[in-house]
Amino acid sequence: MLKPLDHIPTLADIQATHREIQALIHRTPVLTSSSLDRISGAQLYFKCENFQKIGAFKMRGASSAAIRLSSEERHRGLATHSSGNHAQAVSRSAQLLGIPAHIVMPENAPNVKRNATRGYGAEIISCAPTLAARESTLEKVVADTGATFIHPYNNYDVIAGQATAALELMEDVSGLDVVMAPVGGGGLMSGTALMAKYFSKNIQAIGAEPDEVDDAYRSLKAGKLLSNTSTNTVADGLRTNLGEKTFDILSKHLDDIITVTEEEIIQAMRLIWERMKIIIEASCAVPLAAVLKEKDRFNNKKIGIILTGGNVDLGNLPF
Amino acid sequence: MLKPLDHIPTLADIQATHREIQALIHRTPVLTSSSLDRISGAQLYFKCENFQKIGAFKMRGASSAAIRLSSEERHRGLATHSSGNHAQAVSRSAQLLGIPAHIVMPENAPNVKRNATRGYGAEIISCAPTLAARESTLEKVVADTGATFIHPYNNYDVIAGQATAALELMEDVSGLDVVMAPVGGGGLMSGTALMAKYFSKNIQAIGAEPDEVDDAYRSLKAGKLLSNTSTNTVADGLRTNLGEKTFDILSKHLDDIITVTEEEIIQAMRLIWERMKIIIEASCAVPLAAVLKEKDRFNNKKIGIILTGGNVDLGNLPF
Repeated sequence: MLKPLDHIPTLADIQATHREIQALIHRTPVLTSSSLDRISGAQLYFKCENFQKIGAFKMRGASSAAIRLSSEERHRGLATHSSGNHAQAVSRSAQLLGIPAHIVMPENAPNVKRNATRGYGAEIISCAPTLAARESTLEKVVADTGATFIHPYNNYDVIAGQATAALELMEDVSGLDVVMAPVGGGGLMSGTALMAKYFSKNIQAIGAEPDEVDDAYRSLKAGKLLSNTSTNTVADGLRTNLGEKTFDILSKHLDDIITVTEEEIIQAMRLIWERMKIIIEASCAVPLAAVLKEKDRFNNKKIGIILTGGNVDLGNLPF
Repeated sequence: MLKPLDHIPTLADIQATHREIQALIHRTPVLTSSSLDRISGAQLYFKCENFQKIGAFKMRGASSAAIRLSSEERHRGLATHSSGNHAQAVSRSAQLLGIPAHIVMPENAPNVKRNATRGYGAEIISCAPTLAARESTLEKVVADTGATFIHPYNNYDVIAGQATAALELMEDVSGLDVVMAPVGGGGLMSGTALMAKYFSKNIQAIGAEPDEVDDAYRSLKAGKLLSNTSTNTVADGLRTNLGEKTFDILSKHLDDIITVTEEEIIQAMRLIWERMKIIIEASCAVPLAAVLKEKDRFNNKKIGIILTGGNVDLGNLPF
């Protein structure tokens, strides 16, 4: 039985997490594409978290946090505020463990997301569509139910869970030069950078971020946490700002971060759909966009890319 | 070195074909989806030919025909008329074997298809957009170049190639009750029905066809070849009529054929995109549509479904 982490996850923490969440996650496949290799000039290995349970890597982090609760805490349930993949991941983790989930969602969240979350058996609590309302409503829910709040990224248990995607990738593909992930709140990138560091001195961890929401790029450059001033990106999973824990980890362990334009993201997303025949969210196209933007740098490199999720509104595609 | 087949492929023919085309095709994965199993009430095993080279099963049949040519015939090249997946399959097979390909295409074929075919190194010969013009232009190309015409389905070598998809599926998934494929010209369904018969008396082979282009359904019922009167279906890969060879094989070995509406096809297509996060053509959604239409009949059955291809115009989706 694992305990909640009060420190940056070690390799042993990540390995133990991986063992303990096995039953709650899929081991997702790593796909390659000769046509994308030709276009990029690199060797690309795509870790397909779009095939993960609930359609995104968030299942790893949420289940990692959930299994660390005592049986008393489990009975009181899980709580979070989110309208996206994290809400579904917390709900599905709770469902698989047979415990309650309370999800605070802005009242303007799309019905399809409400229904998906409710489909996993969660209770949905609506609130006004502001961060303040979300946080105060969540506080009330936690006070009323005794449920445990699972933060989507600023949480070491969650980071240890997200790191298991890179762990599997490095087990499956030997000799990677680079591992890349998109950066939103930084949970996935933190776990990925830690795993790269633990696994080999020869693997660079490189993040990718939209120009439009480049808080991580600017924060890492400035050496202090800065916020996004807009949320104007097609990569809707990446609009979040870094948290203190993820900023700290990325400051120490991220080798570089590359930003890309909206056009570059959409083009990379379309390439993956057309060439690989898989459905990915715009957010996961950001690392490929970065590789294509800096072709010379990545020429002939063996690059692992984490495709983060596949939950797309098919009625509202950017192409 | 295999010879061209002058008879309905035997099991040994299909097995030999599979060995010989190994280097030219991918062994595609079989995917499952707990959410589609729940929705259908069956256990579904999807053979993902959308991940095949050129994005469709047609690569199997074209390469099976190509490798059977003598070295003298190979030097003169391959020819066909098609604007779809078969054109790309013939072109790519020729490219991999280092021989020429001559593809007759109607002058109104979309540029994206011309470019894809040209990208595989084929010579494209334009003609008026009628079947008569396609056939006469092809005849002239064959006369001028000495290239060998590879028919997309009414050809035993091609049928033996298409049968290898079902062969792999039956090797990978034991105890199937049913194997299903969509029916267009009938090459894939013929190969699939033959493999089912050879593999086990317990596997039913069931075809699926759009109501709008139900020539196979009507032909098999009438006991003679009938033609489609319209081509008005979203499943653009299935607009073709059966040929004499495929009609003959299906008459003997197909257990049943189910027809579905356009709405049912589009709904099944969307389900696969949303739940499985993979891109499939409308044509491959037809068998799932048939399963969902006749749920009681397929309840608890173990069903293999061949997903035929993933070459979709992303700018023109039916949903």
